Amino acid sequence: MKGKFITIEGPDGAGKTTQVKKIYEYLTSRGRKVLVTREPGGTALGEKLREVLLSLAGESPVPEAEALIYAASRAQLIKNVISPALLRGTYVLCDRFVDSSLAYQGWARGLGIEEILGINRWFIGELWPDLTILLDIDPEVSLKRLERARDRLEKETLEFHKRVREGFLKVREIFPERIVAVDASRSPEEVFDRISAYIRKML
Amino acid sequence: MKGKFITIEGPDGAGKTTQVKKIYEYLTSRGRKVLVTREPGGTALGEKLREVLLSLAGESPVPEAEALIYAASRAQLIKNVISPALLRGTYVLCDRFVDSSLAYQGWARGLGIEEILGINRWFIGELWPDLTILLDIDPEVSLKRLERARDRLEKETLEFHKRVREGFLKVREIFPERIVAVDASRSPEEVFDRISAYIRKML
Repeated sequence: MKGKFITIEGPDGAGKTTQVKKIYEYLTSRGRKVLVTREPGGTALGEKLREVLLSLAGESPVPEAEALIYAASRAQLIKNVISPALLRGTYVLCDRFVDSSLAYQGWARGLGIEEILGINRWFIGELWPDLTILLDIDPEVSLKRLERARDRLEKETLEFHKRVREGFLKVREIFPERIVAVDASRSPEEVFDRISAYIRKML
Repeated sequence: MKGKFITIEGPDGAGKTTQVKKIYEYLTSRGRKVLVTREPGGTALGEKLREVLLSLAGESPVPEAEALIYAASRAQLIKNVISPALLRGTYVLCDRFVDSSLAYQGWARGLGIEEILGINRWFIGELWPDLTILLDIDPEVSLKRLERARDRLEKETLEFHKRVREGFLKVREIFPERIVAVDASRSPEEVFDRISAYIRKML
């Protein structure tokens, strides 16, 4: 793999979109080719699955089905987008990846982080991120930032979002060599200062 | 579990729909309450996933995504339909179940039967079928029976369908206590004669 694979994690409202833009600009200004993508989605199939996952209409998936649909979207994204990009030397910047499944379905929904790792490992293979930036924030703060209409997962209770935060921090303990946590309650500029230090180290 | 769980497997064109009807009539005439369902589908979410899986339009799922979407549809069906029905004493008759994933994705697509078992075991739990009827048939014969427009999987090559048949027979070797194979090249009446003998034994 000639490119580097960077993922950004954290709850909605943590500022992932803003930071993805900043990282993109930072890398392209240093001459890297960068592909930005997201989960669930990022492929035609994945976007159909995203609609199934986040829609408020119709039957909600049971936790196991939810975890499997996220995994399906991820498998498609890896094979058709991420892997080919890295092979041709492009940097890949992905808004959410496997750690979201571990935190949301594995921990917050109670399915077990190990169980969710199990269904993801077989298709991720060697394609683990080189660097994962976890935007850590109190959900009471991040939820207040969400001004737009909330999707199915965002509408979960505050209790659920607190468990998601716990989940992300537990996942970080499992992968300390790959995941760095950044305090996302600070200003976008301060947050990016921290992130760019980690990216410089990776480069 | 007070009800019994019966699945019927085999390629399209093997006569599954016809035999499901006959089994349904047989069981209801003996006073059993019977719920008939199918995979992928059987729930509102599952039918959306069925459309994603079988549609000829849009991006085809990579084999891993295909296996995970089938598993998601199955998890939803188990939790919301099959498990509650069995608990209230209803018999469940399902057109395709996990063995199709093992034969199609595990064997014919080459992902590995053990790998596909791995992602299915954690949500199937104890809900394995009491009896699985495998309609075994030469794909050259079953494909000729399909007069309607073929979906994405039916359009695969004859070579693929031969591997599917091999896959089903291998899966039967793994679960000899649960799966019985019936020669599906015979007349519907002859096929049902064999099936009904197995069902009487189960009752």
